[in-house]
Amino acid sequence: MLVKGKCYRTVWFEDGKTKMINQPLLPYRFEVVEMESYKEVAEAITNMTVRGAPAIGASGAFGLAQAALDFSGDDWDEFLEYMEKTRKHLSGTRPTAYDLLHGMERVEGAIENCSSVEEARGKAVEAAQEYADWSVENCRKIGGYGEKLIEDGYRILTHCNAGWLATVDWGTALAPIYVAQRSGKEVFVFVDETRPRCQGARLTAWELEQEGVEHAVIVDNAAGYYMQKGKIDMVIVGTDRVAANGDVANKIGTYEKAVVAKENGIPFYVAAPSSTVDFDCPSGREIPIEERDRKEVEKARGLAKDGKIREVKITPDGSEVRNPAFDVTPARFVTGFITEEGLIKPRELDKLKK
Amino acid sequence: MLVKGKCYRTVWFEDGKTKMINQPLLPYRFEVVEMESYKEVAEAITNMTVRGAPAIGASGAFGLAQAALDFSGDDWDEFLEYMEKTRKHLSGTRPTAYDLLHGMERVEGAIENCSSVEEARGKAVEAAQEYADWSVENCRKIGGYGEKLIEDGYRILTHCNAGWLATVDWGTALAPIYVAQRSGKEVFVFVDETRPRCQGARLTAWELEQEGVEHAVIVDNAAGYYMQKGKIDMVIVGTDRVAANGDVANKIGTYEKAVVAKENGIPFYVAAPSSTVDFDCPSGREIPIEERDRKEVEKARGLAKDGKIREVKITPDGSEVRNPAFDVTPARFVTGFITEEGLIKPRELDKLKK
Repeated sequence: MLVKGKCYRTVWFEDGKTKMINQPLLPYRFEVVEMESYKEVAEAITNMTVRGAPAIGASGAFGLAQAALDFSGDDWDEFLEYMEKTRKHLSGTRPTAYDLLHGMERVEGAIENCSSVEEARGKAVEAAQEYADWSVENCRKIGGYGEKLIEDGYRILTHCNAGWLATVDWGTALAPIYVAQRSGKEVFVFVDETRPRCQGARLTAWELEQEGVEHAVIVDNAAGYYMQKGKIDMVIVGTDRVAANGDVANKIGTYEKAVVAKENGIPFYVAAPSSTVDFDCPSGREIPIEERDRKEVEKARGLAKDGKIREVKITPDGSEVRNPAFDVTPARFVTGFITEEGLIKPRELDKLKK
Repeated sequence: MLVKGKCYRTVWFEDGKTKMINQPLLPYRFEVVEMESYKEVAEAITNMTVRGAPAIGASGAFGLAQAALDFSGDDWDEFLEYMEKTRKHLSGTRPTAYDLLHGMERVEGAIENCSSVEEARGKAVEAAQEYADWSVENCRKIGGYGEKLIEDGYRILTHCNAGWLATVDWGTALAPIYVAQRSGKEVFVFVDETRPRCQGARLTAWELEQEGVEHAVIVDNAAGYYMQKGKIDMVIVGTDRVAANGDVANKIGTYEKAVVAKENGIPFYVAAPSSTVDFDCPSGREIPIEERDRKEVEKARGLAKDGKIREVKITPDGSEVRNPAFDVTPARFVTGFITEEGLIKPRELDKLKK
């Protein structure tokens, strides 16, 4: 991805440290942050400095690699114990994200057969880097397969941010749009603002602007209006975890969009690398749904007139607030999964089993 | 309605002036504003100092009465011409609100048979007051009929604000809840925050707090999640205009909630005085949908840490924004209309024709 003439990834490893784009500052300020330790990586995942399943996956892998480098001493058993503690610490940050576990498994797998801590350090960094590169390649393939579904002049609805910033590069839901745009097709994107954290209004809109893709931000409430009016040709969203039966966990509100899309005969696609499918999870009922801090709902965040990024409180002090971060869209609402292996129907997910 | 131990209405006429609760300041500050002329009333409707179909209806009526008082001279033709100009000015403020036209018709009707400007002034004020009282009585009846649908322990979803503050008193969608609570039933209300203007998070939550009704504010995206989980027993919303075929125009997002409610077998009620039914409007297709200022979507408004009411900008500067204020819910999604005449099925709306 290109930002101000320079190539970036969302998260990367450099000089023994995990680095990432500081997403809560976007679209107001573009800033890169460097993690001093794996604990800072965990904190960055929790406070959503980095977010989006594939980007979290790479962050977890880099965080684990960074921990391996930071481990002092060469006692193998102590090292393994420390790495296990680190993995647990990192995996506890976002309970719904399956890629997070997957990214760290790659690093752990690389360490397993090592014969010394020193060797394991090198392998851990190598595995994390390979995982990130593999993740980018998957997104590029998703873009290619998804692009075929987009006709010239299509108006596409997306929810939340499943673009560059949610992955290491390219994106999942936005990759097909970027590929379509580059291949000369006219596309227009309706961007759900995606309360409470407004990843659509802040991140997706910002990305589309960088790429020169025509788009309009709408409140989440307005998506149904445009579907009903025949102004939306397809919906593409990302996902945090897909159950074996094709149920899809994604940002809160996805379920509503899927139901209304079906009501209006609009195809609803989920773009994700096949690693997002959790074959150990039989259905959406078993996917844990994270309830996040009430402040996200009580407040909105943005740029105040004085140029400062401020939070403003919307709700009365005495009101209770609930904040489920994800919902589950049953497989019957999903037209297809756009994966790096091609377009897969919900019933055919088994094809992705390795 | 009781605020800090004192009885209020949302809008009223006193000493020849229209007075109203300044709603954009809620829930942060409670303040009453006095309108110096009918133009200020029009401005208050446009900038949503007052909002909600019945409250706008009463404001229009009071505004027209205030104009009659403010007319200088006693030339009858000039007076009629001036009143016609005033009516047009007031009716241009919110194109979707049918009650606005209705309230002013009552005042015009009262003037018609007068024989002097002086007499007309008195009749105008009288008619506006009668209209407001009639509107309150309708809401009280809606509360009574709606209460019968609410079982003990019900969890009810509402969208936007159709409470006291949207009417002259009692509310439409919230009136049944207030009556149920006073009759000793346990009720819990899920309050959609209702972006972009957050009338749910600000106004409905504040009202429910004043009345001691248990509630939780959720982002609009989360309503479907709670419906799917079986946590919502019924939906009650208000409406700005009902077409003759039962199609319902209401705050943007209502359509999505109705579709998802039906998908989950949850009854979806629309509470409104029968005057909201526009028998001249055959279906929802003919209801004009207001597109409001893009700033409402770009920004969120609330209380900053420094105690000031501030706006913060969420979206990037280069992004297009669209802001339809209402949508139309087709009659087939409506379980019933709760009116001052009782519970009416969408197909039976003709019963309300007078």
